[in-house]
Amino acid sequence: MTHVLTEVPEVLLMGPGPSAVHPETYKAMSVSTLGHMDAQFIDIMDETSEKLRSLMNTKNAVTFPVSGTGSAGMEATFVNLVEPGDRVLILVNGVFGTRMTDVAGRLGAEVDTIEAEWGTAIDVAEVKKRLGEQAYKIVAVIHAETSTGVRNPVAEIGALVRDTDALYLVDGVTSLGGMPVKLDEWGVDAFYSGTQKCLSVPPGLAPASFSDRAISAIENRKAKVPNWYLDVSMLSAYYQGKSRKRSYHHTAPINMIYGLLQGLALIEDEGYQAVYDRHRHVHERLVAGIEKLGLSMVVDPDYRLPNLNAVTVPEGVDEAAVRQALRNKHHIEIGAGLGPLAGKIWRVGIMGHTARETNVDRFLGALTEELGA
Amino acid sequence: MTHVLTEVPEVLLMGPGPSAVHPETYKAMSVSTLGHMDAQFIDIMDETSEKLRSLMNTKNAVTFPVSGTGSAGMEATFVNLVEPGDRVLILVNGVFGTRMTDVAGRLGAEVDTIEAEWGTAIDVAEVKKRLGEQAYKIVAVIHAETSTGVRNPVAEIGALVRDTDALYLVDGVTSLGGMPVKLDEWGVDAFYSGTQKCLSVPPGLAPASFSDRAISAIENRKAKVPNWYLDVSMLSAYYQGKSRKRSYHHTAPINMIYGLLQGLALIEDEGYQAVYDRHRHVHERLVAGIEKLGLSMVVDPDYRLPNLNAVTVPEGVDEAAVRQALRNKHHIEIGAGLGPLAGKIWRVGIMGHTARETNVDRFLGALTEELGA
Repeated sequence: MTHVLTEVPEVLLMGPGPSAVHPETYKAMSVSTLGHMDAQFIDIMDETSEKLRSLMNTKNAVTFPVSGTGSAGMEATFVNLVEPGDRVLILVNGVFGTRMTDVAGRLGAEVDTIEAEWGTAIDVAEVKKRLGEQAYKIVAVIHAETSTGVRNPVAEIGALVRDTDALYLVDGVTSLGGMPVKLDEWGVDAFYSGTQKCLSVPPGLAPASFSDRAISAIENRKAKVPNWYLDVSMLSAYYQGKSRKRSYHHTAPINMIYGLLQGLALIEDEGYQAVYDRHRHVHERLVAGIEKLGLSMVVDPDYRLPNLNAVTVPEGVDEAAVRQALRNKHHIEIGAGLGPLAGKIWRVGIMGHTARETNVDRFLGALTEELGA
Repeated sequence: MTHVLTEVPEVLLMGPGPSAVHPETYKAMSVSTLGHMDAQFIDIMDETSEKLRSLMNTKNAVTFPVSGTGSAGMEATFVNLVEPGDRVLILVNGVFGTRMTDVAGRLGAEVDTIEAEWGTAIDVAEVKKRLGEQAYKIVAVIHAETSTGVRNPVAEIGALVRDTDALYLVDGVTSLGGMPVKLDEWGVDAFYSGTQKCLSVPPGLAPASFSDRAISAIENRKAKVPNWYLDVSMLSAYYQGKSRKRSYHHTAPINMIYGLLQGLALIEDEGYQAVYDRHRHVHERLVAGIEKLGLSMVVDPDYRLPNLNAVTVPEGVDEAAVRQALRNKHHIEIGAGLGPLAGKIWRVGIMGHTARETNVDRFLGALTEELGA
């Protein structure tokens, strides 16, 4: 019998995701596959959705994992809400905000943007001004911009959007499970995340949630959602049918959902606040170590993410050579910069199960060695 | 530490998929997650694509697993090839052909159909006649119609399509790995499958392949593909980049791809022909047992699938009660009928790792008991 993966080493994943996976989560993913219409699997789906609601701080009935990676979550929120000609405001300060403009544009939206320099946060005053001048169907923003390490002020922006008729769409790919996410308090209408960041589950699912306002907008569309696979009306009849009798839509990724449920249970067990405090504490240890090495952080402390840390590459250092040495000699993965930040920054993730003091210390030791500091 | 899945029993999966998973495949899915841009993971991707090409009998460069379930494969093929107003011919004789009309219609295609009664195959003569009368951008058909157990004559239809300018789109969700699939010989331009049928890997990926003609049609589109997540131009720059330097698109479902690679290796190890013969042999054993019980098969032997067997529910038997007893007392899952066949048939899958004599004997024993025969 061929075993094809005997040579895969254990790499400490400290990049922008995927993050380290807890052994119990791997174990859960290997539990016997059930049928997608099996009553016992439907219980598992319901439990998963309930745990997602709890972690997202929402009562949204339509809360489930989209059967694709985080980017499928982005696609799902836009394709269900956008109709051709809709005016959409996207707040852009990194790769993922930029990606939103592409996704929405392909769907026929009239896309306006407010941009901020990469590495800085969206300016709330600018959003306020724009919303006073122009009506939008959707306002969209990235909570935790994985490409730069910036936390955008999603609560403050939500308060402004609530005073308009717009739907509020938030990307929580890198935030969920690593910092508080409060959909109902912030007035979020459509939200998605990914499993491979602070949930510490391998990539493959995009936990998503839609408010009643969003569902009502979807029900009142002029035309069908131009994406059968991601049509939320059909998906919710499978995931959130009111009775035990669910409508078959597609075959859900059973074992990935097992893994997600286990990942969520681990977070619940530790306690949400304890998990967030751990991220914060480990982040502070990382920043102290980085600064002790004479390096500097890209993002202002007020908008710095705990879980994704952008570090300025010192002058004269070959950033790719350092990353490769970390990976090949020390079995540690960190991320490169993207777009205008390519070659200029390293991205160090301390997400979910990765966020441990020992991991940060191991990384700092290896980095010290490679910089010859 | 909470273990959330302690009460999941091992169910013998003999429905329309998911099918039984080999222990080595579960083990592969639990191998340490690598980063999606890691050189070692890129090797694993390349090996996976190469094994897919071999099993599909194609030289298509653009061959990779779509990051979603089988239905995402259907969405991916249509959304890349259809432009609004394109005339598409869909051959419909079950749920999945019907689904194709919905998928294509949502994308703005002018959809024509040729229909055959559910449980019978598409009539090649009728296709020939239609292709003589009308030009199409795409002709689409289901190879193995999971909802009815019918094998459609994809080779014969392919020979007809090749004489026109149309692109030939084939769904191989239930066929790949259980019966020969010959993309190049049949002239298939766009193909997709699912992992949870004869590949015996949990659901979550849709192995897909696009011919050079299909890629050229995509490159010559008037507008961008209206689906960022499934845009094949961007996906192929990640999965099939000519150099070691791949372009990041989305975070691939790493551990699912591990499982797929292992599932493909198991099929290679056994030998393709041996695997197909096993399906055929186990199918014949099932049919003999079914007929011995006085029951009858829905589909004519000439078009009967080996891997998905539609059995007529005898008069006076409560089909749902039998299915529930099989699941609850015997831990065996079989499938119900869908659409016009709901309540009238059982669907018995013998796909991949499920296709073993012992499984069929166990099922026949349990069915005999429940029918009081």
